[in-house]
Amino acid sequence: MGKAHSLAYAALPMYFWPPPAMPVRRVIADVSEEAAAEAAQRFGFESSVGDWQRVIEDKSIDVVDIAVPNDMHPQIAIAAAEAGKHIICEKPLARTSAEARAMRDAVAKAGVIHMVAFNYRRTPAVAMAKKLITEGAIGQIRNFRATYLQDWSADPNSPLSWRFQRAVAGSGALGDIATHALDFARYLVGEIAAVNAVLKTYIAERPLQQGGVDLLAAAAKHSDGAKGTVDVDDEVLTMIRFENGAIGSLEATRNGYGRNNFLTFEVHGTEGSISFNYERRDELEVFLANDPPDRRGFRKIYMGPAHPYGDGLWPIPALGIGYGETKIIECRDLMEAVVTELLPSPNFEDGYRIARICEAITESSASGQWVALGD
Amino acid sequence: MGKAHSLAYAALPMYFWPPPAMPVRRVIADVSEEAAAEAAQRFGFESSVGDWQRVIEDKSIDVVDIAVPNDMHPQIAIAAAEAGKHIICEKPLARTSAEARAMRDAVAKAGVIHMVAFNYRRTPAVAMAKKLITEGAIGQIRNFRATYLQDWSADPNSPLSWRFQRAVAGSGALGDIATHALDFARYLVGEIAAVNAVLKTYIAERPLQQGGVDLLAAAAKHSDGAKGTVDVDDEVLTMIRFENGAIGSLEATRNGYGRNNFLTFEVHGTEGSISFNYERRDELEVFLANDPPDRRGFRKIYMGPAHPYGDGLWPIPALGIGYGETKIIECRDLMEAVVTELLPSPNFEDGYRIARICEAITESSASGQWVALGD
Amino acid sequence: MGKAHSLAYAALPMYFWPPPAMPVRRVIADVSEEAAAEAAQRFGFESSVGDWQRVIEDKSIDVVDIAVPNDMHPQIAIAAAEAGKHIICEKPLARTSAEARAMRDAVAKAGVIHMVAFNYRRTPAVAMAKKLITEGAIGQIRNFRATYLQDWSADPNSPLSWRFQRAVAGSGALGDIATHALDFARYLVGEIAAVNAVLKTYIAERPLQQGGVDLLAAAAKHSDGAKGTVDVDDEVLTMIRFENGAIGSLEATRNGYGRNNFLTFEVHGTEGSISFNYERRDELEVFLANDPPDRRGFRKIYMGPAHPYGDGLWPIPALGIGYGETKIIECRDLMEAVVTELLPSPNFEDGYRIARICEAITESSASGQWVALGD
Amino acid sequence: MGKAHSLAYAALPMYFWPPPAMPVRRVIADVSEEAAAEAAQRFGFESSVGDWQRVIEDKSIDVVDIAVPNDMHPQIAIAAAEAGKHIICEKPLARTSAEARAMRDAVAKAGVIHMVAFNYRRTPAVAMAKKLITEGAIGQIRNFRATYLQDWSADPNSPLSWRFQRAVAGSGALGDIATHALDFARYLVGEIAAVNAVLKTYIAERPLQQGGVDLLAAAAKHSDGAKGTVDVDDEVLTMIRFENGAIGSLEATRNGYGRNNFLTFEVHGTEGSISFNYERRDELEVFLANDPPDRRGFRKIYMGPAHPYGDGLWPIPALGIGYGETKIIECRDLMEAVVTELLPSPNFEDGYRIARICEAITESSASGQWVALGD
Repeated sequence: MGKAHSLAYAALPMYFWPPPAMPVRRVIADVSEEAAAEAAQRFGFESSVGDWQRVIEDKSIDVVDIAVPNDMHPQIAIAAAEAGKHIICEKPLARTSAEARAMRDAVAKAGVIHMVAFNYRRTPAVAMAKKLITEGAIGQIRNFRATYLQDWSADPNSPLSWRFQRAVAGSGALGDIATHALDFARYLVGEIAAVNAVLKTYIAERPLQQGGVDLLAAAAKHSDGAKGTVDVDDEVLTMIRFENGAIGSLEATRNGYGRNNFLTFEVHGTEGSISFNYERRDELEVFLANDPPDRRGFRKIYMGPAHPYGDGLWPIPALGIGYGETKIIECRDLMEAVVTELLPSPNFEDGYRIARICEAITESSASGQWVALGD
Repeated sequence: MGKAHSLAYAALPMYFWPPPAMPVRRVIADVSEEAAAEAAQRFGFESSVGDWQRVIEDKSIDVVDIAVPNDMHPQIAIAAAEAGKHIICEKPLARTSAEARAMRDAVAKAGVIHMVAFNYRRTPAVAMAKKLITEGAIGQIRNFRATYLQDWSADPNSPLSWRFQRAVAGSGALGDIATHALDFARYLVGEIAAVNAVLKTYIAERPLQQGGVDLLAAAAKHSDGAKGTVDVDDEVLTMIRFENGAIGSLEATRNGYGRNNFLTFEVHGTEGSISFNYERRDELEVFLANDPPDRRGFRKIYMGPAHPYGDGLWPIPALGIGYGETKIIECRDLMEAVVTELLPSPNFEDGYRIARICEAITESSASGQWVALGD
Repeated sequence: MGKAHSLAYAALPMYFWPPPAMPVRRVIADVSEEAAAEAAQRFGFESSVGDWQRVIEDKSIDVVDIAVPNDMHPQIAIAAAEAGKHIICEKPLARTSAEARAMRDAVAKAGVIHMVAFNYRRTPAVAMAKKLITEGAIGQIRNFRATYLQDWSADPNSPLSWRFQRAVAGSGALGDIATHALDFARYLVGEIAAVNAVLKTYIAERPLQQGGVDLLAAAAKHSDGAKGTVDVDDEVLTMIRFENGAIGSLEATRNGYGRNNFLTFEVHGTEGSISFNYERRDELEVFLANDPPDRRGFRKIYMGPAHPYGDGLWPIPALGIGYGETKIIECRDLMEAVVTELLPSPNFEDGYRIARICEAITESSASGQWVALGD
Repeated sequence: MGKAHSLAYAALPMYFWPPPAMPVRRVIADVSEEAAAEAAQRFGFESSVGDWQRVIEDKSIDVVDIAVPNDMHPQIAIAAAEAGKHIICEKPLARTSAEARAMRDAVAKAGVIHMVAFNYRRTPAVAMAKKLITEGAIGQIRNFRATYLQDWSADPNSPLSWRFQRAVAGSGALGDIATHALDFARYLVGEIAAVNAVLKTYIAERPLQQGGVDLLAAAAKHSDGAKGTVDVDDEVLTMIRFENGAIGSLEATRNGYGRNNFLTFEVHGTEGSISFNYERRDELEVFLANDPPDRRGFRKIYMGPAHPYGDGLWPIPALGIGYGETKIIECRDLMEAVVTELLPSPNFEDGYRIARICEAITESSASGQWVALGD
């Protein structure tokens, strides 16, 4: 994540010129002074510290970017808020809704700008879907279906990183990836009224990880040595009732062989449908029911200069964007929020609401019943 | 359906030679003698009757093929069984599990061969998926996801055919199309232990239909004239717990704009995955986890001579099959069952079990709780 | 081919009702009386003969369907024409343009209806492409690109069927499959003015075939036993200049591993583009340049009731057609031609022109120069 | 291009750590001091100049990156070489082979490292294709087919940028984009022996451009005002004979509606096939003939940690790369070449050879004959 976030700050003015604000990579913190010094060199920061509190104390810092394991989000974010700094925090916002609420309350009290890094909604094709829905192009939404399928932990020999430990991560596929799809649900359809879900852990223990860095699919598989217990979910499956009457479903797994970053949605409306798959992120598929009967079909629209954020990206559709650009766009919108003092979306309120949905999903999985979100 | 079934009897020996048995199209029944006479001419039957009982009474008839609205299935099937005739019946087997049970009991008592026309499982790609799973190519199944999305009734002006009337159809998308996906679930994964579901009717009334024939997507849309009430579901969404511990989900709708016959499944196992979409029915996508790490990917396998039923189909993959071939293959297996006196699958027992699952889905939608299938 | 053609006659009234004419499968000829008798039983013919001349002599026969190796086309077709019978002949019409011209002259002189079985242009998606082009939906055509890629003979151990022998087949991939793509070129774009081509034989000899039947991809591979010489092309590659100024290219091979019946075209016009791949034959991809800039993209249109021949096919798009339906449609149009006495297209004149193009391609490959078709 | 190149220098260490060398963005030149100053700020350069000669004179500069219209390549490159600087130059290397030869001779004489920016061959999927071919995974190559289809100039109202002026660009689609596909041909298959081609200009004149910046698909279309003559090709179509006996074809256009950056190749070998489309650049499709007959199919392999350059990219396949990453990888290999003093590929020799192929294509289009490349 250090890579993705640093790239965003460096590349923002190259892509969007003039930028809303010119980010300066002032100081980077890491687990040790040595690690931080190396990171500073690698990621182009002016200085480095081995202790995140030093960043908070630094009066010259305007914005704090939190890209650490989930259990550390609250303390850093609350300290940063109290120090009057604007904050972007990686997702999920926190391990629990109580933590997330405390974070939300802290930023609200401090009056700082806050953002949670559900970067995928800033994929131009997703932003275009939002634009089409807002314009009414597909009418009233009836149904939403999302998946986030990965396979990097399908092998039982992939190591027990912090992502498999409740004490650090809070939950498994639910918090790690399903939250991105929940962000899509709220962004594209609206507030969720109730959920009915199943959580499942397929692989009960995994080899202890060598070294502290989480390598995801790049991690070496090994079957020897000690193992540790997985106490989070591998898979989440939920049905959704939206406040506006739409229904839907959502599935996330990190154990679905052959799927890599298969973050998809399909929305059916009274006047059309929209379909998206991040694995082919330059494309948005749009069906408009009022096209002539013999010329109706999903249009495969390649994002380009005519689409959201197109003025800052590449001058020909399908030159194409990767993961990096989703963070560059996120950075752009964060800078704009800081300058305009208008709260961006998704922010800590959104992060809190998603934490509550995650808890409702967990509760529903235990009870076998619908759990309402209420207020 | 008359077309599809008649094609199957005529084409069986052309495709599979020698055929297990040589079907003779002896007599066709329709709602009137005139309609039946025309049908006989069109579909190549030797004779016709305006009253289905005459078929039952005909001693020269070995096999009865029931392709009528759901409410007529029980009486015809039970009469045919009592007359000692083998039976193939269109899906769903009946409107209710009670009806289905009576039909199952009748055929069991009569000792005749019986089959329910879930033809899609005979798509060669689906049969190949079954073969791979049986061989253990993808290990133990963890997860199953199916959809059956159509859009022919998404327009509120599409007419109120019998498929929207509970008294005739029993249910809506649930019985009409979700049952095909449920058949996949049981065929590929195993018995269903419990369901947790939502049924939804989007369009509460539709224009009364002109004429008796159900034209599906070919029906004329019209907004004038009297309307009638839709008392079945437009959409079904269910989570599934299988007896073997796998979990899954299934969604079916006839209102999903842009989807035509989008009958899909994806199965994740401990050693690989399989994916299928009937809209591209010649293809099966298979991911084998033990392929070398740099050469792993879903294989898009075109069905041909090397695959199930390949000896009877076309001599080059991707010459391709249509809906008709799924019925020709079904007919082949029915003839084989009649000759070998070995019960084919799916049969009325399967039809009954799916009827029970449908009722559990309906019950769950009402109660908001998991409903176990039990025994 | 016996299967495909017989299916067409049996299924025509089932699909298109009422049919233009009701075909009667009167007599089938094969290489021996035994083979013919079995074929009659299999394919539902009233009678059989071991000698094709007996068919010609039969006064009760109106239409002769020629589905034999290429070298026998001229003698049968000319005899049938002289006997006043309407004729449909498999493609390519003949081994040489001289033979094709003689056949064309014979049918013209006899005043009978004649058709050459380039069935793929009757795929509804291809007919829809033609309709769109004729309506001007994509403007004036600038460019045409076609491929016909198969892999059934890529293995050097696939046997030396008649398709690899010039004396029987006339040419290799050129006559066998490239002619279908040339038919597309003339159908969709217009007359070809000149070609510039390369022919190539990759595999110089193959195992002699056991038995007389050509099994294509279903043929057993074997490396033992005697081999025979391949004296036809495995691959053809040609550039095309059309009379209307458009340019294009066309490639055909039976040795392209992984491609099965990859018959594709893409047409670029001044107002849009159209793309087709027979391997996904239910779909036509259409790009309309005057769609709004942010909503432009290839529309993936599934053929159904709203498209050419849709009234006779299946009532929901993507129930889908296979190879058989292309022949059923061909049969429908042949019957209509016989009844209306209007010459269908493509007919023997088209078959002759394509034979001339094939010779120009062969000549160009030898000379390395453009060869004009002239008159 | 300033954006893409600057991004590469900034991002290199973020992606590949430690980098072969740590690039410093010392000075940027532009058409004026003002433009250069703004570019320096935007792209993170330490200083700027309004005159490229000042860069050449700067002793502290090790590497010169030439990203200007084609007509300026020779003078800058030759001056840089004479000043002993390493050089990366945008493609095509020059307008003519004579210019390209002079550039090649200059760098050879100076003994500097040189590279030509055919970045697309550094797409990981393309590098993986090369690896598979080198390892013999698909056997001996028989056939190569490439396309590079764009549509940004299909509209006759898109402005007359320098890319449509022979004096500046040298040629049209040929030099601009076909050269990338020619680079693929030489990279994946081998040296080209001869070509036989057609060049075509569809749109003879275009509106004069407002302002100097080339905006490609982002350029405003306008039909008013003065027009200027297009004296380059819009489309190129060529057949290819390779020195190793393989044959192939290549097509490039900037007028193919619906195609954006449709840079594709398909290679058929004696043991398999490989297919690639840059519009879906994370994927490589590979068919291995020795897979079991019932499990053969194109494998859709998503590039990730297991593939070329995977150690420096994202830790999960399908997080995905965009255009930027192709330049970051290019920059990595350039830095490595500078450090190791081993000439990278493609270099000015490659650029020169491609310039010669372009001239052979042009000559062939005029003569209608095969043109051999010879030595």
